[in-house]
Amino acid sequence: VTRLADRHEIHELTVDIRLEGDFGASYTQGDNSGLIATDTMKNLVYVLAQGRPAEAIEDFAAALAGHLLTEYAHVASVRVHIAEQPWQRITINGRDHPHAFIGGGSEARTAVVVRSRDSLRFEAGLEGLQVLKTSGSSFSGFIRDQYTTLRETEDRILATEVQARWLYSAADVDFDDGHRRVRSALLETFAMHDSQSVQQTLHRMGAAALAACAAIEEITLTLPNQHRTLVDLEHFGRENRNEIFVAADEPFGLISGTLRRG
Amino acid sequence: VTRLADRHEIHELTVDIRLEGDFGASYTQGDNSGLIATDTMKNLVYVLAQGRPAEAIEDFAAALAGHLLTEYAHVASVRVHIAEQPWQRITINGRDHPHAFIGGGSEARTAVVVRSRDSLRFEAGLEGLQVLKTSGSSFSGFIRDQYTTLRETEDRILATEVQARWLYSAADVDFDDGHRRVRSALLETFAMHDSQSVQQTLHRMGAAALAACAAIEEITLTLPNQHRTLVDLEHFGRENRNEIFVAADEPFGLISGTLRRG
Amino acid sequence: VTRLADRHEIHELTVDIRLEGDFGASYTQGDNSGLIATDTMKNLVYVLAQGRPAEAIEDFAAALAGHLLTEYAHVASVRVHIAEQPWQRITINGRDHPHAFIGGGSEARTAVVVRSRDSLRFEAGLEGLQVLKTSGSSFSGFIRDQYTTLRETEDRILATEVQARWLYSAADVDFDDGHRRVRSALLETFAMHDSQSVQQTLHRMGAAALAACAAIEEITLTLPNQHRTLVDLEHFGRENRNEIFVAADEPFGLISGTLRRG
Amino acid sequence: VTRLADRHEIHELTVDIRLEGDFGASYTQGDNSGLIATDTMKNLVYVLAQGRPAEAIEDFAAALAGHLLTEYAHVASVRVHIAEQPWQRITINGRDHPHAFIGGGSEARTAVVVRSRDSLRFEAGLEGLQVLKTSGSSFSGFIRDQYTTLRETEDRILATEVQARWLYSAADVDFDDGHRRVRSALLETFAMHDSQSVQQTLHRMGAAALAACAAIEEITLTLPNQHRTLVDLEHFGRENRNEIFVAADEPFGLISGTLRRG
Repeated sequence: VTRLADRHEIHELTVDIRLEGDFGASYTQGDNSGLIATDTMKNLVYVLAQGRPAEAIEDFAAALAGHLLTEYAHVASVRVHIAEQPWQRITINGRDHPHAFIGGGSEARTAVVVRSRDSLRFEAGLEGLQVLKTSGSSFSGFIRDQYTTLRETEDRILATEVQARWLYSAADVDFDDGHRRVRSALLETFAMHDSQSVQQTLHRMGAAALAACAAIEEITLTLPNQHRTLVDLEHFGRENRNEIFVAADEPFGLISGTLRRG
Repeated sequence: VTRLADRHEIHELTVDIRLEGDFGASYTQGDNSGLIATDTMKNLVYVLAQGRPAEAIEDFAAALAGHLLTEYAHVASVRVHIAEQPWQRITINGRDHPHAFIGGGSEARTAVVVRSRDSLRFEAGLEGLQVLKTSGSSFSGFIRDQYTTLRETEDRILATEVQARWLYSAADVDFDDGHRRVRSALLETFAMHDSQSVQQTLHRMGAAALAACAAIEEITLTLPNQHRTLVDLEHFGRENRNEIFVAADEPFGLISGTLRRG
Repeated sequence: VTRLADRHEIHELTVDIRLEGDFGASYTQGDNSGLIATDTMKNLVYVLAQGRPAEAIEDFAAALAGHLLTEYAHVASVRVHIAEQPWQRITINGRDHPHAFIGGGSEARTAVVVRSRDSLRFEAGLEGLQVLKTSGSSFSGFIRDQYTTLRETEDRILATEVQARWLYSAADVDFDDGHRRVRSALLETFAMHDSQSVQQTLHRMGAAALAACAAIEEITLTLPNQHRTLVDLEHFGRENRNEIFVAADEPFGLISGTLRRG
Repeated sequence: VTRLADRHEIHELTVDIRLEGDFGASYTQGDNSGLIATDTMKNLVYVLAQGRPAEAIEDFAAALAGHLLTEYAHVASVRVHIAEQPWQRITINGRDHPHAFIGGGSEARTAVVVRSRDSLRFEAGLEGLQVLKTSGSSFSGFIRDQYTTLRETEDRILATEVQARWLYSAADVDFDDGHRRVRSALLETFAMHDSQSVQQTLHRMGAAALAACAAIEEITLTLPNQHRTLVDLEHFGRENRNEIFVAADEPFGLISGTLRRG
């Protein structure tokens, strides 16, 4: 919680830390003299968070990794993963409240920083972003063989939960701005694009993200195809004009792809 | 999906149906002649949904219950529970998209209609509404005895997941409007009210809901106290000025209460 | 953990406590002088557990409720719900290990004790007990109408997750023995009984439990019908001789019933 | 379900398939002529399962991958992941029932087969195996610095959920036997070994697995440290002689390591 004069800001973070280094003796000989207790790392995160103003999670992750390398000489490399759960201000009569928030969204912003004494790598992402469109999506022309029973369709519901991870080519980036640009490009492309397949949509979304943010080198998208199946009402003497669907749980296709700037 | 000329509307519903009536023979004698297969009820829901324009879930539940009573003479009473998962339009350059949506929120709108041949009862609600405030909440003056270790605090984080259920006193209500009024009253009171305890906040929220919507007879609120514990930084020579908290999972207090118009 | 001379015993309990009594002022006036903090109740549970040898969860719940009534004069009634997560000994070369355990089962043993100054009521139960039979289950003769598409079957897979709650007619019962008897009766009946419907199976299981344990007054069973759907292989020129099934997620029937000794 | 003369066998599998090959046009040009619908692959799995007797999931995965390579010339490589959810026979009066089963355990057996036209790689594993020991575990001698608040302990509860993945060096292995050997070695070592740290226990468990099964080349173990925290009862004038613990949710240490035969 950052307590500014006129409003509070809140950042809820889940931090995972992975250390690599000279820990062999603890595994093979039960010699714990090089082990840093999980509890100790937790305390270090709290202390570090206290001294810093609100900042992008990418910057906090880099600072945390740097601190661990400074503090513990036998640690060779640190990987910090942070997920930020979003809280939005409660709006009352059209005005944002200064210290009351609403949460509960499935979407999280993520950052992965890998840092050694001579390297620093920034990856950012988002996950849990549920999107759906009721038009502008078809699926036809796929392989038809002895195992195929799926009908072709020129107008289906397309629903997915976007997971994206992108790699920055530099360290001095405005990461908040980068996140906004990529997220907007992904959403806008999903909405506007006329989809022939999840594969094609994935490619268009990735290309749009690379175009929207010059600091990104590469982006990987994972899009599970969350089928909404048209209910057959012919048995009951009715025509289902693309109105009634049932959410199918399993099996589903998980489409994944990486685009690199080239 | 309702396909209007200029935009699509989508309603994702989960429907539970409970029947009461003369089913004794199926239990005691293995006589299935009175049983309605789950699959049959599912089909009935699809067919009914197809013929109706988008409407409040309370109205759809009442229609469904009525249909079941008409169709099956040995059914005495029907209870229909519907939960609606929210989808919001994707906004592009400040404008709502006509057929692309974003979802994933934890909040659901609920309705419970219980209907027999001579009675009809409407209950509505919401669940999964996560809220948090970083100021305006204290907890002190509670019982201190040999088992008490909790410190008093004049300024804590208050976080909860609101579950509300309210009972309408009539059937000819604009249920969408009722839902909006109650939801706004709950959020506004949570944000603006100076909280002495979750119990007091619950009472104020319930009273505000009754005041906001005259058609409501009674409201029940359940508010788990999702503790955010202040991290002790004194060990590390730092002062924690209400900035660093950790989300505690268990145990938590679950505060519940019902307010009736009196 | 109970540390006996030759072996350890472990009981992992989740305890929920609900108090009723004179708490009105805390709700309506923000007067916290009658509130017992959740944290205080948690401490009380720990202290009480420490002084007692391993005992049935029903007995521990009754003692806890009694302690709360003694300690807090303004509490009128206490409801204690306990769920016990099972841990079994790891077996090495056919012998039980004295202090190493294996867990992870979905089944839990439950107890609900409601106690006031002049009443005491014992309910016990189990939940999460997954069972399945590949033969001895049919479903036919049910209502066929315009909405019915389900086929009749004389040989289906029956799968469910048993939830049971039973009421004891006395307080001086060997609750561990009661739990064993009811659980065995439920499992044995599920396995041996030739099922015409889930409804009939529920009735037989409940009757067997009442027969197996004279101290039980009433039992309520809830059996979701977890459909396993026969896969249609005719499209592919194959016959599916009741071999290949797919687990269907939704919708499912939830069959519930209560049997009273009469 | 395999229906033998005197008993039934049941295998509940969850199958994931990942294809690599020449799918570029579907991504970049919306050309679906090379796409195999998820639904088609599902049908292929059902048909293949129908023709085969019960076999190890490793063998089924290899057959499935081989079938996909044969059927679709543009597929270069197939990765099949199978998880098997365990069902055990219900025992009545000490005898196994022929067709009634009990399930619900968190443990699953897994297999990952990666197959191309000229390579075949078998990985097997298990996950969700919950274990706990109430003695024979200490944690001391770790780094103590300004951030350390954790006390050293010579006798703690050790609890974890084992995830293991091992690589076979050959294809003509009795995979059921391999699974049994590795699982026994892991459990026995966990129970018998005097643990100085999770790291050391992980190393011992991995070494035991390699010793127990000559066909294994390498094993990777992941052991989250699921803390059970000793409750401080001194506030209440009691001594907690390692009897009362509380399960801590977060944060926890996730210890991971790979052992190769060398």
